[in-house]
Amino acid sequence: MITSLVTGGAGFIGSHVVKHCLAAGHKVVVLDDLSGGFEDHIPEGAIFVQGSVVDDQLVTSLFAEYKFTYVYHLAAYAAEGLSHFIRRFNYNNNLIGSINLINESIKHKVKCFVFTSSIAVYGAGQLPMREDMVPQPEDPYGVSKYAVELDLKAAHEMFGLNYVVFRPHNVYGENQNIGDKYRNVIGIFMNQIMQGQQLTIFGDGEQTRAFSYIDDVAIPIAKSVDIPASYNQVFNIGADKPYTVNELAKVVSGYFGVEPNIKYLAARNEVVHAYSDHAKAHGVFGEGSGVTLAEGIAKMAAWAKVVGARKSKEFENIEIYEKLPQGWERKAPQTEAVPA
Amino acid sequence: MITSLVTGGAGFIGSHVVKHCLAAGHKVVVLDDLSGGFEDHIPEGAIFVQGSVVDDQLVTSLFAEYKFTYVYHLAAYAAEGLSHFIRRFNYNNNLIGSINLINESIKHKVKCFVFTSSIAVYGAGQLPMREDMVPQPEDPYGVSKYAVELDLKAAHEMFGLNYVVFRPHNVYGENQNIGDKYRNVIGIFMNQIMQGQQLTIFGDGEQTRAFSYIDDVAIPIAKSVDIPASYNQVFNIGADKPYTVNELAKVVSGYFGVEPNIKYLAARNEVVHAYSDHAKAHGVFGEGSGVTLAEGIAKMAAWAKVVGARKSKEFENIEIYEKLPQGWERKAPQTEAVPA
Repeated sequence: MITSLVTGGAGFIGSHVVKHCLAAGHKVVVLDDLSGGFEDHIPEGAIFVQGSVVDDQLVTSLFAEYKFTYVYHLAAYAAEGLSHFIRRFNYNNNLIGSINLINESIKHKVKCFVFTSSIAVYGAGQLPMREDMVPQPEDPYGVSKYAVELDLKAAHEMFGLNYVVFRPHNVYGENQNIGDKYRNVIGIFMNQIMQGQQLTIFGDGEQTRAFSYIDDVAIPIAKSVDIPASYNQVFNIGADKPYTVNELAKVVSGYFGVEPNIKYLAARNEVVHAYSDHAKAHGVFGEGSGVTLAEGIAKMAAWAKVVGARKSKEFENIEIYEKLPQGWERKAPQTEAVPA
Repeated sequence: MITSLVTGGAGFIGSHVVKHCLAAGHKVVVLDDLSGGFEDHIPEGAIFVQGSVVDDQLVTSLFAEYKFTYVYHLAAYAAEGLSHFIRRFNYNNNLIGSINLINESIKHKVKCFVFTSSIAVYGAGQLPMREDMVPQPEDPYGVSKYAVELDLKAAHEMFGLNYVVFRPHNVYGENQNIGDKYRNVIGIFMNQIMQGQQLTIFGDGEQTRAFSYIDDVAIPIAKSVDIPASYNQVFNIGADKPYTVNELAKVVSGYFGVEPNIKYLAARNEVVHAYSDHAKAHGVFGEGSGVTLAEGIAKMAAWAKVVGARKSKEFENIEIYEKLPQGWERKAPQTEAVPA
């Protein structure tokens, strides 16, 4: 019996990975703190444990109880742009939480540790992003993801722990948290349209991203454990064709039968163009699903219309208020130390 | 009035930095948890606060109280070889602790944040190590140090926080914790000789290191805040001339009037040769003190003879017992989860 742990399994990519693992016959345990996920996204048949990867005692007890064959670590707080303002939270969640899992995976001789990193590790100016480039992340989120990648490599070399690292980018599809105002522009647009709000774009909207349909990411992640050629390798994963955020706004609006009504906000600190080379992933996992942006958006829009708009939650624990991008501003609490 | 925070100011390099800062007229606050330092190493005139950089509430309150002009962050648990076995402790101490300080330094507009990183960031096979190389750390200690370097760069670009990063190597001298059995071979040798024990060497002793006398490290660190050309730069710092560990054993034994009596242990996972290029530091900070290995060892030996041997403490919180190097083994506690 193969038993897999999927952290973040109530989240967007995680819930799809759970689905594919169940279909492959795994017994699946989901660990998720529901900070960004939803219990009703967890596919039927999975065992759900509500809690955080940061809780090392819980992590230790789960490994002791279930003796996992594989670990899929997708739990993260993935708001790259916000990470400058929530440094400690970012490193605790994304690095220390990962280390708790790596420690237990070493001790319990887990057969493979699958980790979702991010193209944020590359930093700006390395285009197209290729796996043989040496990453130079430029924000705390990218730094935390890269630190985990390096730690996994060290754990492999010292203890023989096998890993697969995926660097997905701009993933969208059903089960996305469209109420997250800090990330995932497609979900944000859909949520705004369904609430009759303007679409907000940072900068002039000419920044480009290759938006990746969920199947092109979740399926390779789930099946990687069965492909020895993927072990101890890093893979970019996702779509190839870049679109501007302005083009995207048009496509999304079209599926809701409205004209794009855009409010341009001050540009924030982000890379203008980002696209990856996927030759390595295609060589190991085969070509993608072939789902086009129009088809993927159609599927997601159909799902979003059923689910309806979600209220956006403010992130509660901002650590630094200075320079928070427009639309994200919050007042510092009165108790906050303010320099003279 | 210039007020400086020196974390790890009761430790080896830290206590020397405190001395030089006091001499330059700074008001100095030392934050140290005494895990590796000694209260009587703190130079007279400094304000001592016992506590850890990991304690974010304490860090916040110190910044509010003292409004530091400069932060010298030297607190760390720097046992590189042990870091594989104490991953969580390593990242908590060395990364999260640093992030607490970076957060407060941003908020309080500290003028310069001086950080002691390590040559551990480079990884193996990049010799001589030069600052224009892209680091590729290979152990959790190096990963944690590199993550802090990258975070400082991000904090500079987003918030304008100035920093200076130093990557010292193999530093020795007065005030070293010669009771630390996990690091600092010169101190370990002196402690072993004074207790009539054999000198322990991992592997054949032909690994080389350029041992750096403390003045060549602590003086540039202390004065960097007054040298604008050093701001937002990274510097290797230390000695140039490499010695084998076998040669070192001879020199140290000589100053204690004994023949080297060496016990060779199984090689551990470490780089065979490590030496840095210091041209960049010499250009900005001038040439070093000129203290030779023989002179430096003589000074340190004179000090060590006065202080006497120190009992080695076992590290109490080993997380992974598998593959602990010879001489470091400890039994896993009975309560430890052991895989079947």
